[in-house]
Amino acid sequence: MSVLQGINPNIRKMKQLEYGALASRANQIKEERHYKEVIDVSWGDSHRAGVKPLTFVRQVLAACVYPPLINSNNLPLDVRQRAQKQLGTCAGGSVGSYTETAGVSEIIHSISEFIKRRDGGIPSQPENIYISAGSQWSIGNILHVLVNSEASPKTGVLIPVPCHITTAVSITGLGAVTVPYYLSEEQAWALQVEELQRALESAKGVCNPVALYVINPGNPTGYVQSRKSVQEVIRFASEKGLFLLVDEVYQDSVYGENSEFVSYKRALSEMGPPFSGTVELASFHSVSKGFLGECGLRSGYVELVNLDPAVMNYIQTLFSKDSSSPVLGQIALDLMTDPPKPGDPSYPLYNQVGTLELYLLRTSQHYNLPGLSCPPIGGGFYAFVRLHLTPKSIQKSKELGLQPDTFYCMKLLEEGGVLTTPGCEYGQKEGTYHIRYNTQIDKLMSLGGKKKKIHV
Amino acid sequence: MSVLQGINPNIRKMKQLEYGALASRANQIKEERHYKEVIDVSWGDSHRAGVKPLTFVRQVLAACVYPPLINSNNLPLDVRQRAQKQLGTCAGGSVGSYTETAGVSEIIHSISEFIKRRDGGIPSQPENIYISAGSQWSIGNILHVLVNSEASPKTGVLIPVPCHITTAVSITGLGAVTVPYYLSEEQAWALQVEELQRALESAKGVCNPVALYVINPGNPTGYVQSRKSVQEVIRFASEKGLFLLVDEVYQDSVYGENSEFVSYKRALSEMGPPFSGTVELASFHSVSKGFLGECGLRSGYVELVNLDPAVMNYIQTLFSKDSSSPVLGQIALDLMTDPPKPGDPSYPLYNQVGTLELYLLRTSQHYNLPGLSCPPIGGGFYAFVRLHLTPKSIQKSKELGLQPDTFYCMKLLEEGGVLTTPGCEYGQKEGTYHIRYNTQIDKLMSLGGKKKKIHV
Repeated sequence: MSVLQGINPNIRKMKQLEYGALASRANQIKEERHYKEVIDVSWGDSHRAGVKPLTFVRQVLAACVYPPLINSNNLPLDVRQRAQKQLGTCAGGSVGSYTETAGVSEIIHSISEFIKRRDGGIPSQPENIYISAGSQWSIGNILHVLVNSEASPKTGVLIPVPCHITTAVSITGLGAVTVPYYLSEEQAWALQVEELQRALESAKGVCNPVALYVINPGNPTGYVQSRKSVQEVIRFASEKGLFLLVDEVYQDSVYGENSEFVSYKRALSEMGPPFSGTVELASFHSVSKGFLGECGLRSGYVELVNLDPAVMNYIQTLFSKDSSSPVLGQIALDLMTDPPKPGDPSYPLYNQVGTLELYLLRTSQHYNLPGLSCPPIGGGFYAFVRLHLTPKSIQKSKELGLQPDTFYCMKLLEEGGVLTTPGCEYGQKEGTYHIRYNTQIDKLMSLGGKKKKIHV
Repeated sequence: MSVLQGINPNIRKMKQLEYGALASRANQIKEERHYKEVIDVSWGDSHRAGVKPLTFVRQVLAACVYPPLINSNNLPLDVRQRAQKQLGTCAGGSVGSYTETAGVSEIIHSISEFIKRRDGGIPSQPENIYISAGSQWSIGNILHVLVNSEASPKTGVLIPVPCHITTAVSITGLGAVTVPYYLSEEQAWALQVEELQRALESAKGVCNPVALYVINPGNPTGYVQSRKSVQEVIRFASEKGLFLLVDEVYQDSVYGENSEFVSYKRALSEMGPPFSGTVELASFHSVSKGFLGECGLRSGYVELVNLDPAVMNYIQTLFSKDSSSPVLGQIALDLMTDPPKPGDPSYPLYNQVGTLELYLLRTSQHYNLPGLSCPPIGGGFYAFVRLHLTPKSIQKSKELGLQPDTFYCMKLLEEGGVLTTPGCEYGQKEGTYHIRYNTQIDKLMSLGGKKKKIHV
């Protein structure tokens, strides 16, 4: 067999990233020009963007990794006690051991208590929670259960446009079809039920939609759904028999005026019967996009609601095939969901960085400039800024074989030393162009004084 | 949709583990009887089995997690320098940042140098190496490329019997079919090419075999292939056009007399054309099963040989969907493949534990007792011991609705407080029964004095 001919056709359908060319060019520029740095705001990665890790989190993890630190007076008492407690839940007292498939049971308990507090007392069952090496990994596993790769017509999954690319890649790679629903840029990227309805209609004769993927707060848009909007989506999913895949990894990053995070789990429960006992829901969260910003630890969880117990057994098998998730990441989840309390030695420092607002650039105010526009942002890590490109610029990019917004990103990189990602990576209405960047630092704004004007 | 009816039929085919019932019972026993511990030798997990982590590895990781330790005089100079160097390769100087998809390029370089040294100077290309959250994760990704879930007949993958279950679960979950080849217990679980031939014939009309999975040294068998045996398998794969998936995670654990680890990559290269330039190969290794025993960090790598560049692009996309692998696990790979050198302050201590032999129980000598037998073991972490059960015992287990070897494991657990896994989890010739256990500690043997005789 020549492998290229024989490979899984679904793999061939996975969208390959435009971003690769930009990242390579950024590396070249760093070397050629001996720039101190290219300012990289293309990732959803707090530490890369200059945010510092939380001291308490890192101290506990270090003491778990190297237990002699537990006996050292250089670390605060609550850090040492916490490390001791965490190690007590590890087999052989080592973070080098596997854990149970779903994760350390004490940590799962912390997560369920966190969810209960977040949702105003609505209970969360530990047996419905699975920890994994990042939330994307859980999304892939749940999709794996939902997608029937042999079905005809194919399984369909509704996803927003614009949307970060990884979920779409997972869907396509499993042999399902993405059914796009467009977010309304005119209404600050709101999710509209009429558009979900239109998308579902569009799938007729093409595929069999079984699930609806929502990301709230949005990536790349920063849109935060109201309680009413969440309820409408739940009602729609219920009516159409769709499984709800709800990506809530930006739940800690809500800072818009009048914006509030309302979890789907909470809204569902508050809606009461028949919804609360029937709508199937998977909600995802992680230590990467929360206030910890610990992407490199690779740790997230999924909470499953209203699933058939027989299906839960299959999910257990699916998660078990990769043994267990990284133990230090699991401990970070415990620290995130059960943080220091008033009176603990680590509390004052921990609490200082309790709000992401400190880091966040109020992009919308700055970017309503000629040539650029951005609606108010409610939450999340990013700005998704509209580029009003001139016909000349669009023409030029086409001559170069680039998407117009990739061309703009390339110019930003070449002339300003700033690495962003083009809207074409996320999907956008035809004839519109955007860039996404991480707003967690204001390095980009502080460029104002030194950067050249970029002509496009 | 009621999810149970609608779920992926391949997921329904995944074998669910018998082990679950044993593990639950072990937990119950711990609580009921207030046993200090159930002796758990059911996992391939060094730290759980009582092996201590390596000081150098843990010190470097701790300093990477909490960088103020780099300035502390409590850690050896080479540890602090190494941590500084590792952090220099992380974006934003933090292990909390994502890395490139394949892993940190400097770490991939260390791995390629390690492979080159291991294979007597045969070059290894960094661009062919991908780091992942454990080797099983990489195996799943490569299978995902090879398995065409829509093909008829289905894709087939040859796997050994007995074999640890996770690879088979991945194969089935992706919609492919396992084609079993039996290892020869009479010849210390040797892999025989005639049996591969028989297995391939058996697939005719059933599926389209595209790959051959081999694990060397074996799990659960401990069989170590000779150079000649490796060459024979390569010749077979070449002749039949099979992709070679070679699980070499136990490569550091070879201790049998006259046993030697010869990598497939090395054997392939030494065989010269046409083999060396054509046989497609993926070789897997990890920090879990090497001498580090750091299962909980979740880190392994795959080296790909002779793949079409277009296929490599798809593999890049597939790995990119989970962002990157855990950074601390990546650093552990660097430490494993580029350890302290003579003259470094950490070298003497590091070198003391340079051989796993210290921990290994020479099971074969002990278990050729009436009722139990085990051929000599060449390597790996386990003994796979044959149970010569009486007809009465087999009858009794059937009455209880248990597999005979699960029944034996349950007795070992109930009466001896020892948790092992039954042979039926791994596959075995009909009418034969086995148990597998981790031989890295001799706790099991030291039970001799106190345990009751177990009647089966």
